[in-house]
Amino acid sequence: MTNPVPMAEVWRGDFLESVHHGHAVICDDSGQIVEAWGDPEIVVLPRSSSKMIQALPLVESGAADAYRLWEEHLALACASHNAAAIHTDRVQAWLDHIGRGEDDFRCGAQEPRDIEMRDALIRAGQQPCQIHNNCSGKHTGFLTLTKHLGAGPDYVDFDHPVQQACLEAFEDVCGEPSPGHVIDGCSAPNFAVSLHGMARAMAYFASAEDRSGVRAEAAARLRKAMVAYPELVAGEGRACTELMRAMGGRVALKTGAEAFFIAIIPERKLGVALKVTDGSTRGAECAIAAILVKLGLLDPNHPATLKRMNAPIRNWRAIDTGIIRPAAGFC
Amino acid sequence: MTNPVPMAEVWRGDFLESVHHGHAVICDDSGQIVEAWGDPEIVVLPRSSSKMIQALPLVESGAADAYRLWEEHLALACASHNAAAIHTDRVQAWLDHIGRGEDDFRCGAQEPRDIEMRDALIRAGQQPCQIHNNCSGKHTGFLTLTKHLGAGPDYVDFDHPVQQACLEAFEDVCGEPSPGHVIDGCSAPNFAVSLHGMARAMAYFASAEDRSGVRAEAAARLRKAMVAYPELVAGEGRACTELMRAMGGRVALKTGAEAFFIAIIPERKLGVALKVTDGSTRGAECAIAAILVKLGLLDPNHPATLKRMNAPIRNWRAIDTGIIRPAAGFC
Repeated sequence: MTNPVPMAEVWRGDFLESVHHGHAVICDDSGQIVEAWGDPEIVVLPRSSSKMIQALPLVESGAADAYRLWEEHLALACASHNAAAIHTDRVQAWLDHIGRGEDDFRCGAQEPRDIEMRDALIRAGQQPCQIHNNCSGKHTGFLTLTKHLGAGPDYVDFDHPVQQACLEAFEDVCGEPSPGHVIDGCSAPNFAVSLHGMARAMAYFASAEDRSGVRAEAAARLRKAMVAYPELVAGEGRACTELMRAMGGRVALKTGAEAFFIAIIPERKLGVALKVTDGSTRGAECAIAAILVKLGLLDPNHPATLKRMNAPIRNWRAIDTGIIRPAAGFC
Repeated sequence: MTNPVPMAEVWRGDFLESVHHGHAVICDDSGQIVEAWGDPEIVVLPRSSSKMIQALPLVESGAADAYRLWEEHLALACASHNAAAIHTDRVQAWLDHIGRGEDDFRCGAQEPRDIEMRDALIRAGQQPCQIHNNCSGKHTGFLTLTKHLGAGPDYVDFDHPVQQACLEAFEDVCGEPSPGHVIDGCSAPNFAVSLHGMARAMAYFASAEDRSGVRAEAAARLRKAMVAYPELVAGEGRACTELMRAMGGRVALKTGAEAFFIAIIPERKLGVALKVTDGSTRGAECAIAAILVKLGLLDPNHPATLKRMNAPIRNWRAIDTGIIRPAAGFC
């Protein structure tokens, strides 16, 4: 096993205060590694970075078309959203459309990350509900597929037809069996895989148009939905949203809990998977930006880039006290 | 330089998902290292873990007695508090008492960590102010000393008499010159030091009764204030507060930003300083708890201990999905 490499450094004044190490793989459409940092075969939990894979059965089963879902619904199915009104209004309408309600969810209630929505709830004396869960789009996709299949209500059970369909799709696009699964923050199963396998899956999405069959067609639709609606995949101010916009739709991006990040690059037919070993999101955001700059896809001087890979650390009086930047020698 | 060692592991199901590495030193009252992990001579920024040192000039100058400060004020001067009412009411009263106001602060406004206070502000349509800054106790101490010295209003300037007094005290108790300073989150200078030097300073506080002079007397008073008012040093639910309570006042604890932690152990005349290299608070809390258990000071089965070093990771539906625990082989 190869040790993780330094990916991001946190400087305060002239002092290196903190360091983030990680593993990353760039994979081509044949499944071969183009470049790697650290250990490409390390077993990882891709968490929410696997949402576009978990959405494949929704599309390839015909459920998405049977329920006349739009591209924005597919983007929400792949989202870890802020629970701003643009997200929750669409999730509520989608639930209504399929004849399901908030109490059919199994994701749990979560305080909105969107400050306007959070404060509106507090002022109204209301508790956050499951629609505010950052995964509520994925779960509405699960509910849609559940109804389409006529399956039971406990759609997050590992043995449920929805999750078994997700597992089959996951192992197929990763090109390897999953060594096991865990329970994610939203109670859905999350499947383990090698980092290489996850990058291979992202290369599958990147090269979907070269492949045949309903799965490849579904992968292309989901990837296009993500870049068409970057604000639905995460939200204003977030890395996925801002960096996808900065690249003008050329690359699909998705973060995951515990510092996971993926990139799907159709024009090069490449997939990227990245894990910062300490679970720090700021480290993963800096590292994925550095890789995208190295690949010539992201402008190093774009404000969205500078916010992640040369990010000033401002204190409570907005004084610049330090910077987050790629580690020396990484990318 | 010795590499940092694995200190804490984050497991999800059967998979090791994230790891935190760090450096730590236990130092005795002669300044010698009793035990160390990683590199004891690494230069660190102790951040808020140095607040009891930054409060020394307030006491040793005579300002604390001139203004008849109580033990609870000294605890607040060492605090990174939640901005609950127990903290903000006392800071406001202390400001009134010294004839100063919120606009004399230089710490900046910060949203309260205390949810009740945060929500009350939002419902009232009020913005957080500088009194809600987690460092407002330290800054009231700075203002008290500033007034006592008849010094100028910009008390966070490195050249200000208050900060120069802090630096002199810092280098004295650390037993080594500081290689430089940075600007902290609250805009005060924060002095760099070796991890060994910081542990030596904590051993100074632990053995203050064996020493003579106003500085040693001030150190003993501040240490006693911290353990007498654990709820003022941090707040309900926080590691410093809960672990100090769990040890019944035998040990003073203080966290700092970017995963710093210290312990002051009077009965053994020991000081502990710890830095998790990735800046993750959960890692530092797990590691300091593990060291305190190893030293026989903290009950491994106390709920406050279990919350840090065998902490269940519960998801949005309160399902146990994983655990944070000390790394194999650490302590």
